[in-house]
Amino acid sequence: MSAEPVTRCAVRAGAYYDSVVLMQLQRALATLPGVLDAGVVMATPANRDLLEASGLLPGSEIAAGPNDLLIAVKAESEAAAGEALARIDSLLQVRRAETGQDFRPRSLASALKQLPEARWVLVSVPGRYAASVADEALDLGRNVFLYSDNVPLSEEVALKRKARERGLLVLGPDCGTAIIGGTGFGFSNRVQPGEYGIISASGTGLQEVVCFLQGKNQGISQAIGIGGRDLSAEVGGITALQALDLLRRDPKTEAIVLISKPPASEVAQRLISFAHATGKPTVVYFLGAPPVGRLQEVWFTRSLDSAADDVIELRYGKRSDWEDWPIHFPAGQRWVRGLFSGGTLALEVLRTLPALVSPVFSNLSYPGVHPLPDSAHSQGHTILDLGADEYTVGRLHPMIDFDLRLRRLKQEAADPEVALLLLDVVLGDGAHADPAGELAPAIERAKADAKAAGRILDVAVVVVGTDLDPQDAKRQIATLKQSGAWVCRTVAHLVSYTVQRLGEIRGDEIPPLEGRPVPLAAVSPPVAAINVGLESFYDSLISQGARAVHVDWKPPAGGNEKMAGILARMKRSR
Amino acid sequence: MSAEPVTRCAVRAGAYYDSVVLMQLQRALATLPGVLDAGVVMATPANRDLLEASGLLPGSEIAAGPNDLLIAVKAESEAAAGEALARIDSLLQVRRAETGQDFRPRSLASALKQLPEARWVLVSVPGRYAASVADEALDLGRNVFLYSDNVPLSEEVALKRKARERGLLVLGPDCGTAIIGGTGFGFSNRVQPGEYGIISASGTGLQEVVCFLQGKNQGISQAIGIGGRDLSAEVGGITALQALDLLRRDPKTEAIVLISKPPASEVAQRLISFAHATGKPTVVYFLGAPPVGRLQEVWFTRSLDSAADDVIELRYGKRSDWEDWPIHFPAGQRWVRGLFSGGTLALEVLRTLPALVSPVFSNLSYPGVHPLPDSAHSQGHTILDLGADEYTVGRLHPMIDFDLRLRRLKQEAADPEVALLLLDVVLGDGAHADPAGELAPAIERAKADAKAAGRILDVAVVVVGTDLDPQDAKRQIATLKQSGAWVCRTVAHLVSYTVQRLGEIRGDEIPPLEGRPVPLAAVSPPVAAINVGLESFYDSLISQGARAVHVDWKPPAGGNEKMAGILARMKRSR
Repeated sequence: MSAEPVTRCAVRAGAYYDSVVLMQLQRALATLPGVLDAGVVMATPANRDLLEASGLLPGSEIAAGPNDLLIAVKAESEAAAGEALARIDSLLQVRRAETGQDFRPRSLASALKQLPEARWVLVSVPGRYAASVADEALDLGRNVFLYSDNVPLSEEVALKRKARERGLLVLGPDCGTAIIGGTGFGFSNRVQPGEYGIISASGTGLQEVVCFLQGKNQGISQAIGIGGRDLSAEVGGITALQALDLLRRDPKTEAIVLISKPPASEVAQRLISFAHATGKPTVVYFLGAPPVGRLQEVWFTRSLDSAADDVIELRYGKRSDWEDWPIHFPAGQRWVRGLFSGGTLALEVLRTLPALVSPVFSNLSYPGVHPLPDSAHSQGHTILDLGADEYTVGRLHPMIDFDLRLRRLKQEAADPEVALLLLDVVLGDGAHADPAGELAPAIERAKADAKAAGRILDVAVVVVGTDLDPQDAKRQIATLKQSGAWVCRTVAHLVSYTVQRLGEIRGDEIPPLEGRPVPLAAVSPPVAAINVGLESFYDSLISQGARAVHVDWKPPAGGNEKMAGILARMKRSR
Repeated sequence: MSAEPVTRCAVRAGAYYDSVVLMQLQRALATLPGVLDAGVVMATPANRDLLEASGLLPGSEIAAGPNDLLIAVKAESEAAAGEALARIDSLLQVRRAETGQDFRPRSLASALKQLPEARWVLVSVPGRYAASVADEALDLGRNVFLYSDNVPLSEEVALKRKARERGLLVLGPDCGTAIIGGTGFGFSNRVQPGEYGIISASGTGLQEVVCFLQGKNQGISQAIGIGGRDLSAEVGGITALQALDLLRRDPKTEAIVLISKPPASEVAQRLISFAHATGKPTVVYFLGAPPVGRLQEVWFTRSLDSAADDVIELRYGKRSDWEDWPIHFPAGQRWVRGLFSGGTLALEVLRTLPALVSPVFSNLSYPGVHPLPDSAHSQGHTILDLGADEYTVGRLHPMIDFDLRLRRLKQEAADPEVALLLLDVVLGDGAHADPAGELAPAIERAKADAKAAGRILDVAVVVVGTDLDPQDAKRQIATLKQSGAWVCRTVAHLVSYTVQRLGEIRGDEIPPLEGRPVPLAAVSPPVAAINVGLESFYDSLISQGARAVHVDWKPPAGGNEKMAGILARMKRSR
């Protein structure tokens, strides 16, 4: 028997099969006598490439489209391959018989008759059918855990808007994990009940944080996956905002972790306002984005691991590295204006602002920052590098010549909407012989003028210099402090200060949550759910002690798209 | 005297004036009787806007171009304004007389006759003249500290290439600071001599780190500013590479800090190879970029402050949180391949790679990462999210169905260029009942096959799960370890491991430094320098005890561009 292996395949056109069925068919084929390998896939281009890479595609052309089932067998002989292929249908039958059990409803509606207290429907059918199943669940007044991927963005937006109007949640699409009322949905880790609520647009990100907390013997109140696109500009964070509002009201939740890819800027700001509004310590991790410090009770962290560490420390109040003297700025004062002579110092401030506030303008370019149209006039939050080329033509650098900065300081201070002025003082050889001597009187006057006008002008200065510098850093700092400025010696400190003050600036009122609030009962144990799609998700609900019913779901018209369209239209016209 | 203030101005067309002269003229005018405010600027559009913002521009049109001097005066009366303007020329004369001293050479060449041991020329003349002065300095065999901004990129490239050929340095353009052989150039802080060498494309970034080190009682060997554009793709890091090579040879330098905006990817990799080659502990901060861990002796840090802290710890060898069992991969094995079921886990790995190695491919999109053209075949470094939509059509998620992953693992392991395989195992409800049971035998076989072929296949696995999960995380980890895999429980740990191994993969040999090495004498004390431009930079050289000569520089043809062009052509044709 030293013959070459033969590769043969078969096609089942346009039929729907559960992924578990396909996996089991592949395994069964591979164990048949004389069979070396087998592949069972929907014949998408990617899947065909994968079969080919495994040496499972014969040379000849195979007529099969993305909705057709392609079964490939590599065997020791023509006879063994033929025998294997001949058994496909009986193997599919066997599988069906095995899954037989008491009674399985064939529709969501009948499943809900069987388990009316089910508040959740888990949907893991193929993407092209998923939105319609989820929509049906919403119409039946149920929350949706939408595991399915390949769901168009427009359908996600439509589902989430509908859910918001009805006080329901749609977690997903492409939501891999959640822990609701102590019960895990989809892929979820076993944890003890506790006080930490998680909201995450990243499935494995959520799992990593949950596992980390459990590893530190901390429990979870709710872990709410929202799907990777929830914080996009299109979806606008609908589910994230509902979830924050829910955790705000949830008495079991004492601290919150929020995880997402860096969201659209306007979505991020809305989210952070809502996080504030929870009044609960919240740690935010925007995946891959640098941390930006603290905004009142909202902390930004720098990794998945540190998110867990930080929220524990934050909850226990161990984190209080900031002096506690909040400023209550009068309404109307709201802008930060930075007048820097060091470009890098300006940039370090600039890269924290766009995630927190808007609009931000500058003469430096940075993502999320608008170019300042008129360099002589600030608007909104403005951070200026006065040492940039356009300011230094025929003029000394602002580390030497303070004329431009003093004029600008006066101008910004006179703007009644300005709350916080940021300045830098760079000491050393080559620089001005006494920067504080120039700046301190101007700061003092500006603060006094603001006070006389019923405002509070806060001024923060970072001094970069050594105690050996000719200007004497300590004396410079003392002079600046006497003028009423807050003074620090690293830009990191200045950034923290700025973020803290931004939290105190009275912004626009937080807009009320649109739609109806999700009732707490939606996430309270005991959990009961209907499962549509992957049977293993039903199994894991049961193994966790939740009540569940599995729907023996088949696609409309057996997966025939044309027929399904006709059926859907008939249904609508009823 | 309750009359309205009057604003008047004067123009001096096409003349060159030193910025210090202009600042002093402005101050002198402002102190004249009856004068309320004064402004003296080159009449660029930006400067005109600034005058206008200060209420110093009269309503009428003023005919003045960017190369003309514009003098504006706001006074209590017409008479006071007129008198002030009438004094402009005499004030300019007074200033000139005041600066008179023993003897001032009028050219670089004659200055060098006066101070032939000067190895440096500080250039701070206006941008349009700066490249030509720097070029002259290079022709005279001197290193250049090029403070001037507004120098075109093409001229920077030409200067730096010329310098490299001659074993000279060009720091800048737009280089604000340097400490060479203990003497500060431009804006520089006073520090004690020490063992830390700094290379920085950011002026105030360099100053902040230097001040931080001094604040911790640590000294500086050399602090080499390189200009903000040195690490751009166009310049290619010419000066940074020269500086690294110089600090490598400098016996006083024991540890290095390298600061820059995130550079072009190919430049970053070259730089990091050279940093390796120094054999000295090096801390890298790419401004605003997240840290990516450690690559042998090169550490990436997350802020200016932490750069200083890290380099101190690194130098004293306190940082050794990594087990010391390096793998010596045979030549030819060089790629990392990641086969992930968790998208976020894949992404966390992906966001560290492009700064370190290339090419990197993936089915996820990330800056600096190429889309993988054929999803069935990896190339270069490839990180795959096997749970992405394109892999899950009609197929179970790879957390449940390991078929695809096992096939791919075999395929990657058979590639003789693969050194390191990365895998994740996500436990919990819904996931595979025994992932380690599927993966461990495959890992063992792959490692054995590689060994039989004279290769080393390293496999690293991150396990995400809790000890309460049905699969029992501890048992899973034990099984995986038995297969010879390295196992960790957080993706941060997996990333550190990967970065460490990348440092051990024998890459292409580090290309030799182009051009001639810069002799150590260039940066050794005692420092002597010629100053062309801002007189205050000369003053600070002298006040630091360095020998210096100031050139009484005037632009060619008194600033007349046309005439300057004719002169330059005449010079060339000699």
